[in-house]
Amino acid sequence: MSMIFEHTTLGQRVLFGTGQAAKKVAAELERLGSTRPMVIAAGPERPLAETATADITSALWWDDVVQHVPVEVADKARAAAQDHAVDALVCVGGGSTTGLAKAISLTTGLPIVAVPTTYAGSEATNVWGMTEDRTKTTGVDDRVLPVAVVYDAELSKTLPVGLSVASGLNGMAHCVDSLWAPRADPINQALALEGARALALALRGIVADPDDLGAREQALYGCYLAAVAFASAGSGLHHKICHVLGGTFDLPHAQTHATVLPYVLALNAPAVPELAGRLATALGHVPVGEAEDSALVMLHGLPTDESHTPAAVAVAALRELYAVVEAPARLSDYGFTAEGIPEAIERILKAAPTSNPVTVTEENITGLLTAALTGAVPSPAAATLIAR
Amino acid sequence: MSMIFEHTTLGQRVLFGTGQAAKKVAAELERLGSTRPMVIAAGPERPLAETATADITSALWWDDVVQHVPVEVADKARAAAQDHAVDALVCVGGGSTTGLAKAISLTTGLPIVAVPTTYAGSEATNVWGMTEDRTKTTGVDDRVLPVAVVYDAELSKTLPVGLSVASGLNGMAHCVDSLWAPRADPINQALALEGARALALALRGIVADPDDLGAREQALYGCYLAAVAFASAGSGLHHKICHVLGGTFDLPHAQTHATVLPYVLALNAPAVPELAGRLATALGHVPVGEAEDSALVMLHGLPTDESHTPAAVAVAALRELYAVVEAPARLSDYGFTAEGIPEAIERILKAAPTSNPVTVTEENITGLLTAALTGAVPSPAAATLIAR
Repeated sequence: MSMIFEHTTLGQRVLFGTGQAAKKVAAELERLGSTRPMVIAAGPERPLAETATADITSALWWDDVVQHVPVEVADKARAAAQDHAVDALVCVGGGSTTGLAKAISLTTGLPIVAVPTTYAGSEATNVWGMTEDRTKTTGVDDRVLPVAVVYDAELSKTLPVGLSVASGLNGMAHCVDSLWAPRADPINQALALEGARALALALRGIVADPDDLGAREQALYGCYLAAVAFASAGSGLHHKICHVLGGTFDLPHAQTHATVLPYVLALNAPAVPELAGRLATALGHVPVGEAEDSALVMLHGLPTDESHTPAAVAVAALRELYAVVEAPARLSDYGFTAEGIPEAIERILKAAPTSNPVTVTEENITGLLTAALTGAVPSPAAATLIAR
Repeated sequence: MSMIFEHTTLGQRVLFGTGQAAKKVAAELERLGSTRPMVIAAGPERPLAETATADITSALWWDDVVQHVPVEVADKARAAAQDHAVDALVCVGGGSTTGLAKAISLTTGLPIVAVPTTYAGSEATNVWGMTEDRTKTTGVDDRVLPVAVVYDAELSKTLPVGLSVASGLNGMAHCVDSLWAPRADPINQALALEGARALALALRGIVADPDDLGAREQALYGCYLAAVAFASAGSGLHHKICHVLGGTFDLPHAQTHATVLPYVLALNAPAVPELAGRLATALGHVPVGEAEDSALVMLHGLPTDESHTPAAVAVAALRELYAVVEAPARLSDYGFTAEGIPEAIERILKAAPTSNPVTVTEENITGLLTAALTGAVPSPAAATLIAR
């Protein structure tokens, strides 16, 4: 297993401290020498933003935040930044808010201090996106990477449990799909597995007690790592499938990702047993593949049936987490029907990454979609036929 | 377990490809727009450097490389770089070679492409060091961080097994000590554990077959992660103890680090069972702490005696690796004697980080040094008395 890869790490300050956002934002602006920061926060997030910026004096407060960052909004915000001689951007909010800050930074070079209040992850990447005439353009530019990210779980504790689970499972999908994405490498795999570990802890904790700030911290941390890993590794098969289901059949984003993930894991895991074993461990299980040499197994013997392969244990571990957090289970609940399968397959076969560890075929994608449609138990054993 | 930390990631391109150094060095210089690179390589490493730079034309070739980077050497090299209108630095070699490139970059801002041929790890950090009048000065400056690192296992395969093991265990000490160092955080802990995993694989592989390029890749990869984690986390108790033993008693660096590590692990691991369990897994074992919930244990029951605590399993896993690679085992082999213990303790108690998970006392350091002196089996159970 030769290692050939090119990995780019991104330089950034990552600050964690529950209840410390105001102090940390002020310190980061001082470090930047900023005296005229522009605060960007959508209207509903104004109270959170006021908390996070309590220790600074803003030169400009901006609340015109629109999903997908329309270019007209970005242009207005850029002009306002210039008019007010702004020297840094502080964005407090979710993906759209961070996205607007990035759009401003892209043309002005202004440094960003990001204070995420959701689990979107955009703050950890150098990817920007804008929308013009209903067409989204995305790009990669190191200038838009926030120089500092301030994670304060207090600011995310009002995120409802359902939304937290959906957003956290979106992060989990970033982690799992990063394991075999086109630019997957050992570094982003390690970060993805650490992210999966944190998210499994986080989601169990948040579901048990939505006010559990430790669990909220793990969710922010896990989604940060998910974003780092995914931005580095690129979109794998899971994201290509969900892109087709969302784009062609208009299925809801979060639910589609959550539903499809265990089936993609079941398809790919048998071809990457070592990663499957490590994922199972990250999710809280002991993969049998690693256990074979252990003193424990020497003492107690090893189950050898198929239900204990690393792939089966990884899928079982994910399913167990899904049961605890009551994750979406079948695509039929969201408007997908068996009639849609042939068109979906055609598009998925075109979009599937050649790097996928299992060759994607009409047969195995039919099996995957049919199972996901009805919520059938994902079966890793059935998917190992055409491993590369 | 609240998460409060500030972590700075460093932006860098990290390129792995056995046999691809020349191609990758040329590509990175092109990406930098460099047409007048200065190649830095010590005399004995000239053949490796010629291989690594076969696809570029150098404006200047520099072979005056001296350990610990004397400031006079740095000044001469800086002047030469200026005289030859050099626009980038390519260093091929170990820590001293990378160190000279960093010294040049510190005052000139010239970008560095580093091609490590040992497991030193300096290429992954923003730390520089120079020596003047026998006094070493070190500092931190982002300018000295190589913009790209090219890892080619072909260039490290001539590193003798003994030196590879010593250097690899030095990397392992960076990983293990990073778990509880003053600036330890979940991110550098995750990277350290991944580094430990790679190094355990690497050292077993190199000892079994010194020409195993896959194992050499894992060693480069593990030591890269060790350096990233350690530079971020800082020096923990292990490095403070070894600094005293090396500085005051003139014990040899590599052997001292290798000998002391299991005893520091035995001291600290009982106070950080979760990290100990993950370290044991990284080293190839299944920690019982994690196994408690597993289907495997449900099927077969769990041993409950003290020899199966996560700490005990972590120490056992490290000792097992040590046995395979025939690591140094006792300080008495390197000139340390019982008479030195009182002075060592006095100095270690002053130097010990307050962040150490176990409060350092005269009693537990006496136990540690006495055991390390004679190569006694490290006992985690004896060290848990004063956990914070």
